[in-house]
Amino acid sequence: MSQPPTITPIGTVHSCFPDKFGVPRQPSLCPHARGDVVLHPPWNNEEAFRGLENFSHIWITFLFHQIPAAHRPSTLVRPPRLGGNTRVGVFASRSPFRPNRLGLSLVRNQGLIQHNEDLRLAISEIDLVNDTPVLDIKPFLPWCDAPQSATAAWASEPPRPALGVRFSCEAEQQLQQFQGEHPELRELIREVLSQDPRPAYHQDDPQHHYALRLHQLDIHWFVADGSCVVKRLDNA
Amino acid sequence: MSQPPTITPIGTVHSCFPDKFGVPRQPSLCPHARGDVVLHPPWNNEEAFRGLENFSHIWITFLFHQIPAAHRPSTLVRPPRLGGNTRVGVFASRSPFRPNRLGLSLVRNQGLIQHNEDLRLAISEIDLVNDTPVLDIKPFLPWCDAPQSATAAWASEPPRPALGVRFSCEAEQQLQQFQGEHPELRELIREVLSQDPRPAYHQDDPQHHYALRLHQLDIHWFVADGSCVVKRLDNA
Repeated sequence: MSQPPTITPIGTVHSCFPDKFGVPRQPSLCPHARGDVVLHPPWNNEEAFRGLENFSHIWITFLFHQIPAAHRPSTLVRPPRLGGNTRVGVFASRSPFRPNRLGLSLVRNQGLIQHNEDLRLAISEIDLVNDTPVLDIKPFLPWCDAPQSATAAWASEPPRPALGVRFSCEAEQQLQQFQGEHPELRELIREVLSQDPRPAYHQDDPQHHYALRLHQLDIHWFVADGSCVVKRLDNA
Repeated sequence: MSQPPTITPIGTVHSCFPDKFGVPRQPSLCPHARGDVVLHPPWNNEEAFRGLENFSHIWITFLFHQIPAAHRPSTLVRPPRLGGNTRVGVFASRSPFRPNRLGLSLVRNQGLIQHNEDLRLAISEIDLVNDTPVLDIKPFLPWCDAPQSATAAWASEPPRPALGVRFSCEAEQQLQQFQGEHPELRELIREVLSQDPRPAYHQDDPQHHYALRLHQLDIHWFVADGSCVVKRLDNA
């Protein structure tokens, strides 16, 4: 290989998560988290996806574009799953702070859609922030991608939902208003907040109020008595 | 993203497959197919792999380096699994002829080893040709990488071994000679040939004799009465 290869995105993610804050830490945690891969030429061609309707799940290889290209990854990272204090090797984690900034997500295939001028691949159960550059799409092959014998010490079970989620009266009324535009908004908020997106070092501060953006809405919430309370929803 | 990102391999595969011919069409088909990822600086550091011993399987993201960088992938490909005639979309296949030439393999983690001056990650059940540039290594997380509900029409089961494998008397004697250097050579040959690596358009030509390279050996074979016969082994 004479020179380092360059990569050209085949598409860009349009996602319900405008910001990193609140994005699930792996796919599949939030079934109502939806998005589209907006396909770039020459890949905005139905032919390139012929037969993909036979596969329920697909691999998205993407770039962690919010990590600066100049960021020099360290050999050790602190996964949130281990409480944010234990350090493990960068290659023993799925941390975005890694060489080549390559991400890998298994998402549910919802099929091609035409949206105005764009051909898009609809996806769900995503953990992808808006504007993520997509480098490749591959079908999930159960027989070789899911070995029965696989073991994974501290990460063999999904993280349990950490928090119950309640809605204030104001938030309940607002959910009704947004019902037409975002019919699954309640489920999405519940799924995202139940994962407890607070940074580990905040979890002893019950007074802290947060705003987390989903679609074009700021979701205002705080934690009281081990439960997440959604106070109100604002147009951002 | 102002300019297309470049990628820098973190390591290079040292594999039992010097050539593309005979490489299994997915990992896990050949348990005795072994290799190492020879790690490049600064990733030749045990710290970067701390904790990886907890994971039985790992994802290797790699470059299909034998496809010329200038190759312009087409939207349709002909997977060998479908007989080599049916065309499907490039994103509905795992074909190496794809944009960005990115490959993805799930392999078995055999742990770090020191080999002369090199730090290497030993791997098995591989489908990687020698000298493959490795771009990333990630742990396999069963809870999010292996959904129970996944479906995959024509690729839900592994391909069955297509051919029985027999050894000539000459080959049997040679296997004994190479026993010290390659103790698993018989199993490897059997696993590789039983997948029937012949190109689809050859399968009506029983007279054809093949040489397939494993390690530094040319394995000479042909197909007779639906069985693969290993004639002899030559030092290449």
